[in-house]
Amino acid sequence: MKSREIRLTQHFTGPVKPEYFEMTEVDLPDPQAGQIQVKNAWLSVDPYMRGRMIGIKTYVDPFQVGQPMEGGAVGQVVKSNAEGFSEGDWVMSMNGWREGWTASAEGVTKIDTNLLPAEAYLGIAGLTGMTAYVGIKKMIGLKEGETLWMSAGAGAVGSAGIQFAKAMGAKVLATAGGDEKTAFCKELGADAVVDYKAVDDLSAAVREAAKPLGGIDAYFENVGGDHLQAALDAIKAHGRMAVCGMIARYNDNEPLPGPTNLTQIVAKKLTLQGFIVSDHFDVYSDFVSDLSNWMMAGKVKTRDTVFEGIDKTPDAFMGLFTGANIGKMLVKL
Amino acid sequence: MKSREIRLTQHFTGPVKPEYFEMTEVDLPDPQAGQIQVKNAWLSVDPYMRGRMIGIKTYVDPFQVGQPMEGGAVGQVVKSNAEGFSEGDWVMSMNGWREGWTASAEGVTKIDTNLLPAEAYLGIAGLTGMTAYVGIKKMIGLKEGETLWMSAGAGAVGSAGIQFAKAMGAKVLATAGGDEKTAFCKELGADAVVDYKAVDDLSAAVREAAKPLGGIDAYFENVGGDHLQAALDAIKAHGRMAVCGMIARYNDNEPLPGPTNLTQIVAKKLTLQGFIVSDHFDVYSDFVSDLSNWMMAGKVKTRDTVFEGIDKTPDAFMGLFTGANIGKMLVKL
Repeated sequence: MKSREIRLTQHFTGPVKPEYFEMTEVDLPDPQAGQIQVKNAWLSVDPYMRGRMIGIKTYVDPFQVGQPMEGGAVGQVVKSNAEGFSEGDWVMSMNGWREGWTASAEGVTKIDTNLLPAEAYLGIAGLTGMTAYVGIKKMIGLKEGETLWMSAGAGAVGSAGIQFAKAMGAKVLATAGGDEKTAFCKELGADAVVDYKAVDDLSAAVREAAKPLGGIDAYFENVGGDHLQAALDAIKAHGRMAVCGMIARYNDNEPLPGPTNLTQIVAKKLTLQGFIVSDHFDVYSDFVSDLSNWMMAGKVKTRDTVFEGIDKTPDAFMGLFTGANIGKMLVKL
Repeated sequence: MKSREIRLTQHFTGPVKPEYFEMTEVDLPDPQAGQIQVKNAWLSVDPYMRGRMIGIKTYVDPFQVGQPMEGGAVGQVVKSNAEGFSEGDWVMSMNGWREGWTASAEGVTKIDTNLLPAEAYLGIAGLTGMTAYVGIKKMIGLKEGETLWMSAGAGAVGSAGIQFAKAMGAKVLATAGGDEKTAFCKELGADAVVDYKAVDDLSAAVREAAKPLGGIDAYFENVGGDHLQAALDAIKAHGRMAVCGMIARYNDNEPLPGPTNLTQIVAKKLTLQGFIVSDHFDVYSDFVSDLSNWMMAGKVKTRDTVFEGIDKTPDAFMGLFTGANIGKMLVKL
């Protein structure tokens, strides 16, 4: 079986450019003992991948130049030489950015496509949903009746988070950019939505919109920059912030200054908690159980933005930073 | 009895200037039922008071223009009309910035000057020591063998914190400015000391100095600005920061940008916890008990910087922002 794959041509800072990616076709070997061969059907692209393109070790190793990149992927087993895997089985792996692969079955998870469509395992039922869940439930400890500000509310993590917070009995103020995205946030159940592109003073707009909700108790940080500044300003005393990502900052050519109002951390006695989902698999079974209940009760819907074809994977990835996606950004092969 | 007191002439931002203070003499009335008259012996000046001079409510109400300011003070009862207080009793109150006062005895605490000198109740055995204790023990949860970076190590909170952390079995890297202050940090038991005024790259200097200590597990934030930037850079993954204050920022004419490396909160999964000591009196008895044991074991020493006379109180206060104090800044009357 032949497979086309996307490789990184160089490490870089600043905006992502097409020339940092190249597509190559390889011949996949037959699986040796303990290996399987898989044809991917869906690939995930996620903001955290940007960090692996810089070439400096952060919480994960950088991508290797000249090697296929990694990322979430679901597909079907073509050939198996590993116990427990048969031809036709649907599996989830980190062997993304490629059409197919032959590799060890270790760490590869079988998924049930009768329960959910295969691509959901890359979104709401996968690390994306789990990220929203960990942030809200474990980092913030959001309580019934409290108000959460979900930034990037129409994004993959944000759209899951809005629904999870509502299902937990909390109120949600969401921010997003543009009419289509704000409408989507409302559709997901957000009690108030602010279009950050349509306001001059984000902090004032959020304060105003949060008034009928009793103010902001907690903030889910996906954006950074002006959003963090506004959150420090608008949040109530003893507020909690789950710091999941700062997508506005990832493509800076050089590091830009942070908010001018960090002294609010003292004045308001705030807690800021950075986290990475992979540190928190201790709540995975809670997540699966809560998510199943919410889905059965019709409380969770999903929407994806889909690019088609392996050659479009860099475009899908670059689109994350221009706000091209509503819900989860996926590549369909 | 006559008393001279320091009043605020206006609310202000930017550097503190002498003209923002005026001294007035008042006649103290005789105490009514429930009141006492007290002659203060020692006054405390503290960085947090700066926030009360801006005129905006933060976690405490602003000082009133034309009224005597408030602050920690210890003194002796001159006349009592309140149960439980007799002439000659030593008491601690928030009626500082003045030579004497007649007011309700409510909230006034009797202190034992046989146990400790009166002024210690404004420092290591008072809110200053308690602040260091709460930050290290409750916010950070510092463990034996871990390494704490104490910023402003020669200051009031910092010098208490170095000794408390050592007494808890942790290692301490302290930062301070100039030879005398760094020598004082060493005297207090700091395992490594960096003179931030003598290095170009604070982050690199701290990393290097922390190497023999196994790196930085936790950071006690008193400074802000370049110190916070360096701490985000130098701290280890899963590091905890107790955010007690940011003295470098309090006198800015306009808010200055924060660190450029806040994405480290995500990448290193950091916890930043702002706090105010008055929210944490639940650990007060632990503090008293630990402090007594450490003092009896000779593990805690104190040093004060003393200005003399009520008219010098504004100078003492302004000195906090120019680094004029080693240990606790006090005014002796």
